Amino acid sequence: MKAWQDKVRRVTPYTPGEQPNKASMIKLNTNENPYPPAPGVRRILDSFDEDRLRLYPDPAATSLVAALADRYGVGRDQVFVGVGSDDVLAMAFLTFFNSDKPIFFPDITYSFYPVWADLYRIPYETKALREDFSIRAEDYYPDNGGVIFPNPNAPTSRYESLSLIRDVLDHNQDVVVIIDEAYIDFAGESALSLVAEYDNLLVVQTFSKSRSMAGMRIGYAIGQPDLIRALNDVKYSFNSYTMNQTSLAIGVEAVRDEAYFRRTLDMICATREAAKASFTELGFTFPEPSANFIFVTHPDYEAAELFKALREKDIYVRYFDKPVINRYLRVTIGTDEQMAALFAFLKSYMKKG
Amino acid sequence: MKAWQDKVRRVTPYTPGEQPNKASMIKLNTNENPYPPAPGVRRILDSFDEDRLRLYPDPAATSLVAALADRYGVGRDQVFVGVGSDDVLAMAFLTFFNSDKPIFFPDITYSFYPVWADLYRIPYETKALREDFSIRAEDYYPDNGGVIFPNPNAPTSRYESLSLIRDVLDHNQDVVVIIDEAYIDFAGESALSLVAEYDNLLVVQTFSKSRSMAGMRIGYAIGQPDLIRALNDVKYSFNSYTMNQTSLAIGVEAVRDEAYFRRTLDMICATREAAKASFTELGFTFPEPSANFIFVTHPDYEAAELFKALREKDIYVRYFDKPVINRYLRVTIGTDEQMAALFAFLKSYMKKG
Repeated sequence: MKAWQDKVRRVTPYTPGEQPNKASMIKLNTNENPYPPAPGVRRILDSFDEDRLRLYPDPAATSLVAALADRYGVGRDQVFVGVGSDDVLAMAFLTFFNSDKPIFFPDITYSFYPVWADLYRIPYETKALREDFSIRAEDYYPDNGGVIFPNPNAPTSRYESLSLIRDVLDHNQDVVVIIDEAYIDFAGESALSLVAEYDNLLVVQTFSKSRSMAGMRIGYAIGQPDLIRALNDVKYSFNSYTMNQTSLAIGVEAVRDEAYFRRTLDMICATREAAKASFTELGFTFPEPSANFIFVTHPDYEAAELFKALREKDIYVRYFDKPVINRYLRVTIGTDEQMAALFAFLKSYMKKG
Repeated sequence: MKAWQDKVRRVTPYTPGEQPNKASMIKLNTNENPYPPAPGVRRILDSFDEDRLRLYPDPAATSLVAALADRYGVGRDQVFVGVGSDDVLAMAFLTFFNSDKPIFFPDITYSFYPVWADLYRIPYETKALREDFSIRAEDYYPDNGGVIFPNPNAPTSRYESLSLIRDVLDHNQDVVVIIDEAYIDFAGESALSLVAEYDNLLVVQTFSKSRSMAGMRIGYAIGQPDLIRALNDVKYSFNSYTMNQTSLAIGVEAVRDEAYFRRTLDMICATREAAKASFTELGFTFPEPSANFIFVTHPDYEAAELFKALREKDIYVRYFDKPVINRYLRVTIGTDEQMAALFAFLKSYMKKG
């Protein structure tokens, strides 16, 4: 090893999920939306003045912040935007989790949490979910350096009620509590309704799922102005200009088209209901899904085996080779046609087996 | 102060440069390119399939990495891309400057260096430039935790020869040395020619200046594979998907059009030569400019006064209210027309004075 290598930050590298790219494939592995973004996006691309690309974007992302503030009925000083919710969450870890005490999050959850904690040398403790994958509020009562969990949780798709979140907040007034709502639009009520009441609550959402824009990398956080100011101070100390000109223009358009947003959400939720019935018919079980994916297990088939069989047919779902969840497959809700192809294959495969 | 605020990372917030946005203004304050991006960018926007936006981008940014590797004659495992060179540099600070020893950089330089050092709690020492703003190689000989400087330097516009860089590298084999070449295309030979020889050299460049794309946020680093691997490990631990679908498509197109790139570079360099003559005629002096800006001072006029007078006429240049450089203005090279308007105003203003 060379001397300069001593000074290199060692991390356990995060391996991004597989992004296969075949015309014929059925891609149900990364919780992308099966429907295109709002139709106005085409108009934005067509009318976009490319000369603007030579200019720095607005560092405060004012247009997008304003569109989100209006949409969610909060002040413009209550919205922070970033390059996908991963950027927003990474900034939030760096900004808010600066204690010697461990932060708490569930043992089965978004796999990036321990990676960010490792990157920024933040101590952490994971809290076991109940057998039904629900979160035990009491686990989050002891003294800690901060709390974060997704709602609905990933990869379980389970939604926790606002009363649980309120309970966690009431027992954690001295730390920042982050609710990662990447999938909330497919679920129940958002914790945004608690932001006015709790000045230590940060709610993080994304354009990647319900707004069909994983490819644009837009995420945001909403909280009281003190939290947002602290996030912006750190963001401006990292990279002042994170949101490029196209993200700003396209992002604003996506927020504006509420009707399209509702329509595609309804379609995905309807397909999810049908998928629940089809999985049940085939003998699968799953926690009640509240996201755009369903977390299924079968008593007679190994998840790894099904994953491999599907993959050979160019049907991609997500398999996690980790304790407990290695008996499950996470299946993104696609179009009705994609789901029909999935179930047709499963039916024929399981008949043979 | 509330208890949760104890855990918030305190930083001295970086204030991004002013981004005025008036139709009539002459914007010579943030070193943007006065010419639009490569004409192919229009075609990319027109033919861009918006349905792709629902999919995550390629986390490895393979298409853009390949285009840059081909352009610069290096391996694909030698190129790292990020959201502007600020993102690349911030990642490089986090990745490579992990020593208890201070990193070294010039006292007059890119104002983000101390901000990143502060953000990541990296000790640093600044080294005074000579009176002519040149870098003293010997200052970088003592034991340190890493070295970084821009070449050409900002805001001085001064270019250092490769022999100085080689000298610094020869005396710093045990740390990573970063040469920040945001403006190199307007200057002399790039340190890229030294990458094969020094495995601890990282060269950082950007699309924001010479490629007319400040608005797209694309930066990159080139170095030997070990350095790039370490950067990617940290990047994947922060945000796997930093480059959005439009950045990738537009970025590749900009790299391809070498003829347009050369033509606009030549135009800016020609305008710079004319600007040197005009500034000299008006009694200004400046270090020899090697970037797309010129750093001027006048024996009879306060820089702050000229800055204010220009601003009132909607001509924006950059003024730094800091010791030594507060006698200077940093003036971006615009189009010939923009420079003519600047000089017409200065002539009439200085006649009155």
